[in-house]
Formats: sequence, structure tokens, C-alpha cells
Amino acid sequence: MYTGVVIGTVVATRKDERLVGSKLLITQPLNINKKPIGEPIITVDTVGAGIGEYVIFTKGTAARYAARKNDAPIDAAIIGIIDNVDIYLDVFDKK
Amino acid sequence: MYTGVVIGTVVATRKDERLVGSKLLITQPLNINKKPIGEPIITVDTVGAGIGEYVIFTKGTAARYAARKNDAPIDAAIIGIIDNVDIYLDVFDKK
Amino acid sequence: MYTGVVIGTVVATRKDERLVGSKLLITQPLNINKKPIGEPIITVDTVGAGIGEYVIFTKGTAARYAARKNDAPIDAAIIGIIDNVDIYLDVFDKK
Amino acid sequence: MYTGVVIGTVVATRKDERLVGSKLLITQPLNINKKPIGEPIITVDTVGAGIGEYVIFTKGTAARYAARKNDAPIDAAIIGIIDNVDIYLDVFDKK
Amino acid sequence: MYTGVVIGTVVATRKDERLVGSKLLITQPLNINKKPIGEPIITVDTVGAGIGEYVIFTKGTAARYAARKNDAPIDAAIIGIIDNVDIYLDVFDKK
Repeated sequence: MYTGVVIGTVVATRKDERLVGSKLLITQPLNINKKPIGEPIITVDTVGAGIGEYVIFTKGTAARYAARKNDAPIDAAIIGIIDNVDIYLDVFDKK
Repeated sequence: MYTGVVIGTVVATRKDERLVGSKLLITQPLNINKKPIGEPIITVDTVGAGIGEYVIFTKGTAARYAARKNDAPIDAAIIGIIDNVDIYLDVFDKK
Repeated sequence: MYTGVVIGTVVATRKDERLVGSKLLITQPLNINKKPIGEPIITVDTVGAGIGEYVIFTKGTAARYAARKNDAPIDAAIIGIIDNVDIYLDVFDKK
Repeated sequence: MYTGVVIGTVVATRKDERLVGSKLLITQPLNINKKPIGEPIITVDTVGAGIGEYVIFTKGTAARYAARKNDAPIDAAIIGIIDNVDIYLDVFDKK
Repeated sequence: MYTGVVIGTVVATRKDERLVGSKLLITQPLNINKKPIGEPIITVDTVGAGIGEYVIFTKGTAARYAARKNDAPIDAAIIGIIDNVDIYLDVFDKK
């Protein structure tokens, strides 16, 4: 799974009917230092995430399970709101 | 899911029979500022998209579900026409 | 799906038995201007493609469906011979 | 599968209920010389891995099987603790 | 599928029980000119490959099928020993 921040919303009136009722959020992937990495993607929200929230998202089949829409055309979903990330950077110093 | 713009069409007379009846469109992936990112791919249209339309597309198994051809050799599909994307860039300023 | 050109063949006598009878072709991925992008991969031919032909190929589970060998260790397959690609480049000029 | 080192933990109170009881660890992918490659990801621990341990992790559907939660929104999991990696670098000299 | 060379072995005493009995080999991906591309990965051997052998490997669900362990946490597997690769480079000259 990956960490990201919700930065926007997408409105699409004409779309696959199985997406109706799914909130589409733009999520910017972040590294563990909260720096943006790569391009934002469209994610389905499954936990009530809001703009600016620091989230866990998943990709592929896992995203359809997250949305509880196993046969929907979904390939990315937000599955948690992050309270805290603890990094033990000294692990690298030991290597 | 990803955002892109439809830029062309593909004609293939000799192909897997499960692709017959599926419209194959060339989609250029775009970032949220509508700048091209990466190379165009071949997508199956499932929402009646036309040249120049700003679309949502999906990859992998989700694409087969989109096309309602669960056992077809499809790995990318257009699943929505984007009306609007709202980006709250000040999210980054707060980080 | 992706576009490529068939550039070679692979012979492997010792292999998974479910690959027996599948023709293994080396396909060079191409962009829409027919320039090589990335490294060639090994694809299973499902449409009778020959050396030098301009093809559509697919990856992942879609490739197993293409080969009609749903439980075989296949992750890339040629699914069509391209007759023509029409690109409307002025789409970019409008953006 | 990939090699990595566990460098941290993630706490998310609000999350998909199928993640409850799964320990979420931050894993830094490493190359075979134990140098970091790419960005850390969030993995589900399935073998009792601790901070600083050198692990094998897997991605995609394999990760759900690892977690024995086949319908959970999981796409990366730690599946083993590495005792030893033996590399025969002279393989390259012969090529 | 991809070409690679087996360059090492991994020993992991503590691991997912479904990996017991599977030989874990470090495979260096190669391009068609046998130059290393990208980082080595851990693959399950399914054809009796040895150190230094030139192999075909597969990724994702295809790897689990290769290992005939459809529910095991495996995402890469060696599926063939390459006897010969024939490349027709003049294909590029014609383009």
C-alpha cells in the first residue's frame, strides 16, 4: 500500500454505472517524508477521506475489494486515514 | 484510475475474436495539469468517448470489467468522460 | 494494450508444459510513432504474427485469456495485427 | 518477490475493517547489495517481522494470499525473514 | 515474459509455509543482448534452473500458476531454460 494526500475531486457525469455512488478523489502519492512522488491518480474513497488528509491507498484488485465492488472498473482506492508514521531511520545507519 | 485524452484510433482486422465490436482508441495519459505523461496506450472505449475528449481510464482486470468482457484480452479501458477536475493546490503549501 | 513489432523468436526446450504449443515471439514495444520504447519482452502469439509485423499486445491476466490458457504461466500475448493507426495530433494543439 | 528492510510502522485508526488485526510496516526495498532502491511502501506483516529485519516481500494478489485475507484491500506483504543471500557475481564475468 | 540469468540463492528459514519446498533463486533481468536491466528479483524455480542459466521468468498471477501453488504468496517464477534467442535486427532498419 502507499501513502498520499487527497488534493482534489473529479466530476464525471457520463461514466460506468458501477462507479455511481463512488466518490472519486485525486490523490497525490507521497514518500514517507511527505514529499510528492510521481503523478496524482484518481482513487475511490472508501473511508470518508477529505481534502488534505494523509491517507493509505491501494492499487489493482485490492482496490475493488476496498470499494466492495468486486466487478467494478476500479483500480485505486483509499483504505485508511493515517494517524501516524514512525520511521526508524537509524536502520539505515546500521547497514 | 488515470486521466487522459483520446488522440486516435486503431484498426486491426486480424485480432482476437473477443475484441470484435470493441472500439480501440489511442489514449494519451495526462497529468492533472493536462500535460502528457508517458506514452499513449490502446484503450477499449466503454462510454462512447470521442477524439479530443478528456477521459478517465483504468488498467488491468478493472478494464475487462469495464468492457463487460471478463475473459477478453483487454488491459486498459475508458470508463468515464471528465466534466471537471478541482485541485486544491494549497494542500501542498500546508505541508 | 500496447503496440509493438515482432523482432525475434525464443526457443526453450525445457519449459513449463503448459507453454508447449505456444509460439514465443520477442516483441519490441513501440510508441505511436513506431519508435522503440523500453526493452523487448517475450510474448505468446495468438494471431499468427510474423517477424516484422506491427502488433497489439497485452499484459497480465489478459494475456492468459488471449492464449486461451487461463492457468498457464503467461503474462504477455500478441492479440492483433495492426492495419492502421490514425493519430489526431491537433488534439494537443488545442490543449 | 523482493528484498527489503523494515524501517517503521503506520498507525491508522480509521481504516478498512478487513485491515484490523494486520500489522502495517513500512518496508524500504533494497537491492541485493542492501542498498535502498525506490520509495518505501506499506506492507502487511505475516511472519512476525521486526524493525531492522531483512525481509522478502511480495506485491499484488500474492500479498492477499500471504495475509490469508483473500478479499482484503492488501497489495503488499512480508512473507519471509531472510537468513542469507548468496550471489555468484562471476556469472556476470562469464557473459 | 522476461529473460534473465540466475545469479544466486536466498535462504529464509522463517517464511510463509506455502513457500516450503519452493527453491528461491535470485534472477537478474537481462535485455535481449544479455545486458542486465534493472534490479535482480527473487523468483521461484519451477524447471530445475541452476546458477548461470539463461531463463524465461514470469511475474504476477502467472508465477503462481507456474509454481502450481495458486494460493501461495508468489509473484515471480522461472518457467523455462532458454536454448536460443534469434533476433532479426533488420526489422528496425526497415522502419
